[in-house]
Amino acid sequence: MKKTIDVCLSPSLYYLYDGSDSIVVVIDVLRATSSMCVAFHNGVKSIVPIASVEECRKYQERGYLIAAERKGEMVDGFDMGNSPFSYMKDNVKERDIALTTTNGTQAIEMAKGAYQIVIGSFLNLDTLVSWLKNQNRNIICMCAGWKNAVNLEDTLFAGALVKNLLSDFELNSHRDAALTSMHLYDLAKNDLYGFLEQSSHTKRLEKLNIKDDVVYCLTPNQTDVVPGMVGSSIVNLNVLQSI
Amino acid sequence: MKKTIDVCLSPSLYYLYDGSDSIVVVIDVLRATSSMCVAFHNGVKSIVPIASVEECRKYQERGYLIAAERKGEMVDGFDMGNSPFSYMKDNVKERDIALTTTNGTQAIEMAKGAYQIVIGSFLNLDTLVSWLKNQNRNIICMCAGWKNAVNLEDTLFAGALVKNLLSDFELNSHRDAALTSMHLYDLAKNDLYGFLEQSSHTKRLEKLNIKDDVVYCLTPNQTDVVPGMVGSSIVNLNVLQSI
Repeated sequence: MKKTIDVCLSPSLYYLYDGSDSIVVVIDVLRATSSMCVAFHNGVKSIVPIASVEECRKYQERGYLIAAERKGEMVDGFDMGNSPFSYMKDNVKERDIALTTTNGTQAIEMAKGAYQIVIGSFLNLDTLVSWLKNQNRNIICMCAGWKNAVNLEDTLFAGALVKNLLSDFELNSHRDAALTSMHLYDLAKNDLYGFLEQSSHTKRLEKLNIKDDVVYCLTPNQTDVVPGMVGSSIVNLNVLQSI
Repeated sequence: MKKTIDVCLSPSLYYLYDGSDSIVVVIDVLRATSSMCVAFHNGVKSIVPIASVEECRKYQERGYLIAAERKGEMVDGFDMGNSPFSYMKDNVKERDIALTTTNGTQAIEMAKGAYQIVIGSFLNLDTLVSWLKNQNRNIICMCAGWKNAVNLEDTLFAGALVKNLLSDFELNSHRDAALTSMHLYDLAKNDLYGFLEQSSHTKRLEKLNIKDDVVYCLTPNQTDVVPGMVGSSIVNLNVLQSI
């Protein structure tokens, strides 16, 4: 029997899903899960996702790089915010990072009972699709959204996963979020940035002068990492498996 | 300043919205809110939405017609279920109806703190759009969904409302559900039934042999009623206003 693929459009709807026997793909395309992919691509050893700014700050004295974003901006006193470009520097190699963001790390917290949490973004799309096909598990694509509200960019990436996995998986017969996101992705896939220009979230991020971030985060297949939770840290599962 | 229009894709997300100063359009296209529109079009005086089957049953001895649907089927011992055609009979004229359904009446219950609750379906689309334009209030389109999961048909109708109201209203800048539903409606509007044939919910309803119901519920502009809550009953607000 085929395994199922489902999409959860907001962390507030996650209670409808049973993650205990599923792989949950956490999606926060702008920008937490994109930045995580870049971090591992550039040699970061582990990322500890943390819910609060205060708790995250404490990791500095334990030798971690600390990263915090709130309202789209880096928090004062932290080593980095949430831009993928801040993880493209040599000084991140082999480092452990403690990270807190507005939506992404909260979504990870919410999914903690899952069989396996992995991290998805356009940057690791094809690799993630192949990896998921190999696992033979039900999949829940969990969109982080914006403060629990549905957003376009995470929905689009969930749609990209559904589109690429539909031949190997079945849809849940009582939920249409997977179809909704796949239709939306079909509509947008030839010009993701153009499509998102209508999105409020992108406009908000544009005000913060991070257009370069947005364009980069919407570029498929820049890395072959598959970040996933092991214990309380995120590591690159694709490396672990190839050892 | 323009008023806002927003879409809530599931009753479980309604806590993110402030209905107290808004008109909440409750949407359960297949079939509760469509049937309500048909009921008022055929002379029903009032509908009392009720959460539980047991409570609904008690209204029979008080002279109400009683209507109950669970899992898509009429509950034994009730006068009617949830089919729009069951409200096209002469015996409903001037009657009061007590109604409970799987999703629609629960969504109404959830929205009870709203400034005004009204009932939307494709059957009263244009009339509802005109009525909403005249109210000068913020609008929240609340999709009943399927047991709190997002469904296509309610999302599509929310999209139809957004599409028709966007020139007069503004979108909320931190939520993309309105854009999501409008894009989906644009994709589907020329063949709503064909589009929904891919939908799990439609397939489930087809198993119950209610294809005629589905086709009818997707036919725009069959009536000029605007059902809305007054006290604990739903009445036709469009009649009240024209008196």
